[in-house]
Amino acid sequence: MRIVQKFGGTSVGSLERIRSTADIVQGELLRGNEVAVVVSAMSGETNRLISLAKEVSDAPAERELDAMVATGEQVSAALLAIELQKRGISAYSFNGAQAGFKTDGKYVRARIRGVEADHLTERMKAFEVPVVTGFQGVDDSGNITTLGRGGSDTSAVALAIAVQADVCDIYTDVDGVYTTDPRIVAKASKIDQISYEEMLEFASLGAKVLQTRSVELAMRYQMPIHLRSSFDLVAGTMVSKEDEAMERAEISGVAYNRDEAKITIVGIPDHPGIAATVFGPVAEAGINVDVIVQNVSEDGQTDLTFTVPRSDYRKTMEIMSKLRDSLHARDLKGDDSVAKVSVIGVGMRSHAGVAQKMFRVLADERVNIQMITTSEIKVTVVVDEKYVELAVRALHSAFGLDRVEQSR
Amino acid sequence: MRIVQKFGGTSVGSLERIRSTADIVQGELLRGNEVAVVVSAMSGETNRLISLAKEVSDAPAERELDAMVATGEQVSAALLAIELQKRGISAYSFNGAQAGFKTDGKYVRARIRGVEADHLTERMKAFEVPVVTGFQGVDDSGNITTLGRGGSDTSAVALAIAVQADVCDIYTDVDGVYTTDPRIVAKASKIDQISYEEMLEFASLGAKVLQTRSVELAMRYQMPIHLRSSFDLVAGTMVSKEDEAMERAEISGVAYNRDEAKITIVGIPDHPGIAATVFGPVAEAGINVDVIVQNVSEDGQTDLTFTVPRSDYRKTMEIMSKLRDSLHARDLKGDDSVAKVSVIGVGMRSHAGVAQKMFRVLADERVNIQMITTSEIKVTVVVDEKYVELAVRALHSAFGLDRVEQSR
Repeated sequence: MRIVQKFGGTSVGSLERIRSTADIVQGELLRGNEVAVVVSAMSGETNRLISLAKEVSDAPAERELDAMVATGEQVSAALLAIELQKRGISAYSFNGAQAGFKTDGKYVRARIRGVEADHLTERMKAFEVPVVTGFQGVDDSGNITTLGRGGSDTSAVALAIAVQADVCDIYTDVDGVYTTDPRIVAKASKIDQISYEEMLEFASLGAKVLQTRSVELAMRYQMPIHLRSSFDLVAGTMVSKEDEAMERAEISGVAYNRDEAKITIVGIPDHPGIAATVFGPVAEAGINVDVIVQNVSEDGQTDLTFTVPRSDYRKTMEIMSKLRDSLHARDLKGDDSVAKVSVIGVGMRSHAGVAQKMFRVLADERVNIQMITTSEIKVTVVVDEKYVELAVRALHSAFGLDRVEQSR
Repeated sequence: MRIVQKFGGTSVGSLERIRSTADIVQGELLRGNEVAVVVSAMSGETNRLISLAKEVSDAPAERELDAMVATGEQVSAALLAIELQKRGISAYSFNGAQAGFKTDGKYVRARIRGVEADHLTERMKAFEVPVVTGFQGVDDSGNITTLGRGGSDTSAVALAIAVQADVCDIYTDVDGVYTTDPRIVAKASKIDQISYEEMLEFASLGAKVLQTRSVELAMRYQMPIHLRSSFDLVAGTMVSKEDEAMERAEISGVAYNRDEAKITIVGIPDHPGIAATVFGPVAEAGINVDVIVQNVSEDGQTDLTFTVPRSDYRKTMEIMSKLRDSLHARDLKGDDSVAKVSVIGVGMRSHAGVAQKMFRVLADERVNIQMITTSEIKVTVVVDEKYVELAVRALHSAFGLDRVEQSR
């Protein structure tokens, strides 16, 4: 089997962890597998380098920031290669340019255009281990670029695709994706297999085990991702294309996100272009609007409610206050103590009534639903933050996700 | 004028020093000059990275060491570029690969084969400032190599040659080359102009202001080096080809080196190949033999005396002790408290009697000469270390080098 393994900053953050990481690489080689490794910078190093640049200038040029920050992975890749060589393994570090990562020219947030990694494939076939820097590449002119925070997951998936790996193993400090947050529901259980689509919904809801871009890329090329723990080498969660043959549960999991604030503009004229007028300035301020609900029009007037990340609440309210007059809005309301709760599952496509069941369960628990939004494989409600635990537990149980073998 | 400026680790070692360094760059631009900059790693950074690698392995692979260590200059180059940009200067960092430094494949001690820097020349013509990492390059396969300690001087000269600069300004913490060590002779004076050949003799004698390789390279391409202080922007010492028209003093300076040890093998058979037998094992141990003197043969036997760096004295004596029997040597003597004193000057070629004058001066001071060696532009004696100051002062004065305008 050909495997690309990805290790994050904590896995190369100390000499002890570098040794444990090398153990894992060595283990796969001993099982006869071909291995390439993608590493992040040692934990803390990226921030240290950025601080250094910011000491020189409040607004350091992004080209130079990337050139600096990219050194972090170059160091950790070389250190891991040294540790592997000590064990008699032919390991060699490669930075973004050397590994053939070609990106667009958008510094700090570059996108991978392709990976020219035939030379690495050849090495893997000879059981040499390329240790590749994650998070970076070069543009057409050879300038160093970085992919933005968490980009190493995407690097690993892109490399796996380029070397035609069978699987991309992403090692983290958790052993997989759970049906919900085990801190809230003790009976949460690990999901053995999840589809790309479901994983995307989990990730976008704040279960930040995998960078969204990496899942999108894996989905496009049907590259299986094995999300697993570097501390416990049991099987984790396999993220792959939906297995049609499999009997699916109605939903795969219950996700939530407390980092939400809700804003309502009451009584604005319901004419074409009103949404653009409202959300234009918000987007310009770099604020990500999430759920949007527009109520039915009445007397040519409508109410518009949307959520933003809680940290952007104050800024968004300021923007809306300024807009209020020009919009001739009757009122402006805000609430920064709301949360999102979602049920997710590809099974939903074939199971009617998931939404209805969700509303019934929440009603039984007297949880008031403030907003509703649905997608093909997800139903989301916005509720008062104080109901989060109650709602998640009730839904987890009602949809049959509680583990049975273990009592509380 | 087109200038390549080189700044060492202390010049980029703190934010304050980075600002001072940027002042110097900016100054040249304001005078209408085209500038490229070569920088070392922030002081201490290279050692920090090497220690990190050594913690992982006692014998880290040199390829990986180079990949790690090269990041040091990448960070300092980016930081200086950021500082320059803050001042409205179009500055861009380039690592060894980006700047076109092609080297052989000898990690840790690579030699520059060529610099493909036409893209940097174009930028300089547009008054953009390339800030280039010193000390590094890539081999034919794109592997990162480093030039070994002090290699940044050589990088700067190589870049100056490649971009057809008028001069290579090397900034240090001294303002030039002196007729001798001012700590020993208060009347030592700065040399305004010195030939490459003289500079090489000074450098090889431990006046480590400029790396020998960089002077050799500059000599081959007739690139003038301006050795100057980053603290005091007056003219320093210009290292360039000998000015034939100039009336030359007999000698340009008096140099010394305390880091010497002397070893004598007494009474060995004087037959062909004896030198190879003696120095083979020493060279294999990586020890640099410096002065070698073989006495006239008598009864088919000879004495061989040579010097080595003092830190290699013990090791060399061990090697010699083992050789002694197989060489049938009568005796083996060692002295690790000797020093070299040299008078240097291209003028010597046309002035007979420099050696004779030197011996007379030392005899007058009752300094016993233990060994003598001469080259075209240098006469060197080995003396007891305790006579160093006395000998240097007497020679500096006798050869007319004492500054006259200033009394002690």
